[in-house]
Amino acid sequence: MTGSYLPGGLATPATLVFADRLDRNLAGMAAFAAGSGMALRPHAKTHKCRQIARRQLALGARGLTVATIGEAEILASRGGAGQAGPEVEDIFIAYPLWPARDLVTRLGDLAGRVRVTVGTDSAAAAGRLAPLAGRVRAMVEVDCGLGRSGVLPADAAGIARAAQRAGLEVSGVFTFPGHSYGPGAAAAAAADEAAALGEAAAALAAAGFGSVERSGGSTPSARLASPGALSELRPGVYALNDAQQVELGVVSMSEVALMVAATVVSRPAPGRIVLDAGAKVLGPDRPAWASGYGRLADWPDARITGLWEHHAVVAVDGDAPALGEVVAVVPNHVCTAVNLVPELLVADRGQVVDRWPVAARAANR
Amino acid sequence: MTGSYLPGGLATPATLVFADRLDRNLAGMAAFAAGSGMALRPHAKTHKCRQIARRQLALGARGLTVATIGEAEILASRGGAGQAGPEVEDIFIAYPLWPARDLVTRLGDLAGRVRVTVGTDSAAAAGRLAPLAGRVRAMVEVDCGLGRSGVLPADAAGIARAAQRAGLEVSGVFTFPGHSYGPGAAAAAAADEAAALGEAAAALAAAGFGSVERSGGSTPSARLASPGALSELRPGVYALNDAQQVELGVVSMSEVALMVAATVVSRPAPGRIVLDAGAKVLGPDRPAWASGYGRLADWPDARITGLWEHHAVVAVDGDAPALGEVVAVVPNHVCTAVNLVPELLVADRGQVVDRWPVAARAANR
Repeated sequence: MTGSYLPGGLATPATLVFADRLDRNLAGMAAFAAGSGMALRPHAKTHKCRQIARRQLALGARGLTVATIGEAEILASRGGAGQAGPEVEDIFIAYPLWPARDLVTRLGDLAGRVRVTVGTDSAAAAGRLAPLAGRVRAMVEVDCGLGRSGVLPADAAGIARAAQRAGLEVSGVFTFPGHSYGPGAAAAAAADEAAALGEAAAALAAAGFGSVERSGGSTPSARLASPGALSELRPGVYALNDAQQVELGVVSMSEVALMVAATVVSRPAPGRIVLDAGAKVLGPDRPAWASGYGRLADWPDARITGLWEHHAVVAVDGDAPALGEVVAVVPNHVCTAVNLVPELLVADRGQVVDRWPVAARAANR
Repeated sequence: MTGSYLPGGLATPATLVFADRLDRNLAGMAAFAAGSGMALRPHAKTHKCRQIARRQLALGARGLTVATIGEAEILASRGGAGQAGPEVEDIFIAYPLWPARDLVTRLGDLAGRVRVTVGTDSAAAAGRLAPLAGRVRAMVEVDCGLGRSGVLPADAAGIARAAQRAGLEVSGVFTFPGHSYGPGAAAAAAADEAAALGEAAAALAAAGFGSVERSGGSTPSARLASPGALSELRPGVYALNDAQQVELGVVSMSEVALMVAATVVSRPAPGRIVLDAGAKVLGPDRPAWASGYGRLADWPDARITGLWEHHAVVAVDGDAPALGEVVAVVPNHVCTAVNLVPELLVADRGQVVDRWPVAARAANR
């Protein structure tokens, strides 16, 4: 990719999706899942767009994963004129919801429109789902080593029984191997994921639940999964990719489908330039192992060493973009970057050909 | 503050402004500026709300500071029904704009409605402002040690002459002492700020520009400024405050006016709870010196050790909030948190009394 790939005349900062790269990414993961005999249920929190969800479903995804009821409500709706919904029939809210009263009401309404599965990791939360008996399915969350939510695999059967007592069909167990986000960490995380799902599924089988879904998958670990261990993959980032995936070696820069066009607004000192894309458009994410706060697609030696709300400070050696030049910036974490803008500009062969609303932006509850 | 201070029945996560604390914060900084003989020009990027801007102006602020033309356009407009604008007459865009053609047009339109001053740190950018001669004023940005944008103080006069050649009135010099954001760093940063503004103003005086504005001020350094060094203060965060300010010792927890109500959704292991407020509502900011990804207002010993998009993992010893309990979370960086939500719920004496749109949300250009 060269800078000339960017559409001309952009007002910056502008968040762009490159249609050809998006399509290749979606097709690649769909082919991997189909070829290896696992179902694909992409996590829509990455893109929050009806247009991308529709493409994922058309390529054979069994349904969508979301993080909140709000994301589910929006992506299950058709949207306004020209925004026909993705016609999703099956949504998994992969989150340990605490079913406060208003959430139970909203889940019931949602279940009247699509098949709904929710995550749970406590008997107390599962019990509060009783008003939804027969209408909503449950998946038990297990922790495979990340140390976030989810019970130990050995405790999964107890939660499953609580959900069953509340009248819910228990469809399986799920986990998130988020410790795959580290240099060289993906293989071990994928092994942890396989072991935890296997142990939890065996515990459910021993408790009389039969053969259940084993759902996992982060983008760094997804292609390390095998159908002996997982029945379903839930990667999200793979649709667009980001600087984290590049620096982890999961993808190459040519597979990054979302970038932020930014203008060089200042060259205040030798070796330093300042871009008008800051934390409010790139997102402030910066894992300790990252080279900086994102990458410049066409300046591989440049490093984003500082990020403020509207300033990216870039260290450059030798040749550098000129004052006023527009450059393509790859955010560290695409899920954060997408959530910061109301729409994505769709670029194809150097032209802006469409604008996709980030329909589920800020749908945090 | 105790948890009972939170309004009951909130759907979480919810971003709340506590009206009494906001009013005290605004009045305190206004009194400091007035008492010490410096003008106050609050940075509106923190709150992006017409309602808060109006209060700042009513308390004597000479105008507003913003970071983008978009913020200026929105805050200078009256908004919809019930959203009467702040009636601001004077806006400083404290940013080294690169005046691409569309920005020049927008600045010209804006200058027809309010008095507009823009930042500049290069002769090239200043020269491109020539179509706005006589309609827009310029302030020269100098770097006082942060290493972001701005020229060295000794170079300020050259930029000022370029702006003058372009037909712009040069009203002064400005800087941002952002290196005040560190433990024990504020006094040295304030001294750097004073020295840089003094040197730059002297350089302009020697070049025939007379006595000019010396504008500075971050929230950690604002109260260390003196009128011998600064003529204008531009703090932003002080209106609402955040966990960074508390941990830097700038304010106490009782001065934090924005919090996110969050529900305990999971208690997966001893000493660990999970909240439904993640990076998409708190913001992912975490300076190296911070204790975590924000603070729990009523659980001073708790530490937010991990943050994902919709999960905050909290380490707690001993007593801890129960499953389903709603707690008040203080974000690390309030400017990021505000920009993530469409509106702020205004709380007063335990009730939600109003909703303020984040009018300039995502106005990044």
